[in-house]
Amino acid sequence: MRQYLFKISTKLKDEIKDPQGQVVEKISKRLKIFNEINVKVGKFYEISFFAESLDEAKTKAGELAQNILTNPVIEEYQIIDIKEIQ
Amino acid sequence: MRQYLFKISTKLKDEIKDPQGQVVEKISKRLKIFNEINVKVGKFYEISFFAESLDEAKTKAGELAQNILTNPVIEEYQIIDIKEIQ
Repeated sequence: MRQYLFKISTKLKDEIKDPQGQVVEKISKRLKIFNEINVKVGKFYEISFFAESLDEAKTKAGELAQNILTNPVIEEYQIIDIKEIQ
Repeated sequence: MRQYLFKISTKLKDEIKDPQGQVVEKISKRLKIFNEINVKVGKFYEISFFAESLDEAKTKAGELAQNILTNPVIEEYQIIDIKEIQ
């Protein structure tokens, strides 16, 4: 078995309103860091686990993302990185 | 002014207990997707804004990350990607 580290992000689909993002927009305008800014807030997962091969690792990662980490009705996920570690 | 898109993730520092991550660990063991798994949960931001140059964009992004998006005592951030968009 080899150990893999994978990084995944999830966020609300574009058509869904994102109140957390709107708060960050408001604050950064108030602090005058930005005038025009658009923010989407999601979650980030850094996960390490064991698998037989990279293919198996990808399958398992997808399963985890779809079944546990996201609500597919309103959220979408993106695998940022997946690699073998020591 | 050019428009930049940047992606940033924040997570609790390694020495800080992460209860959300522990929940994901427990569930994925119960569903038998994984036996051994280690999960860290953080936040993910997808932000678009305007800046004069890539350098300025990076500076502003760092400012935003340090001052608004993270609590530097218990969290750390990582810029995943920053690029110019149309």
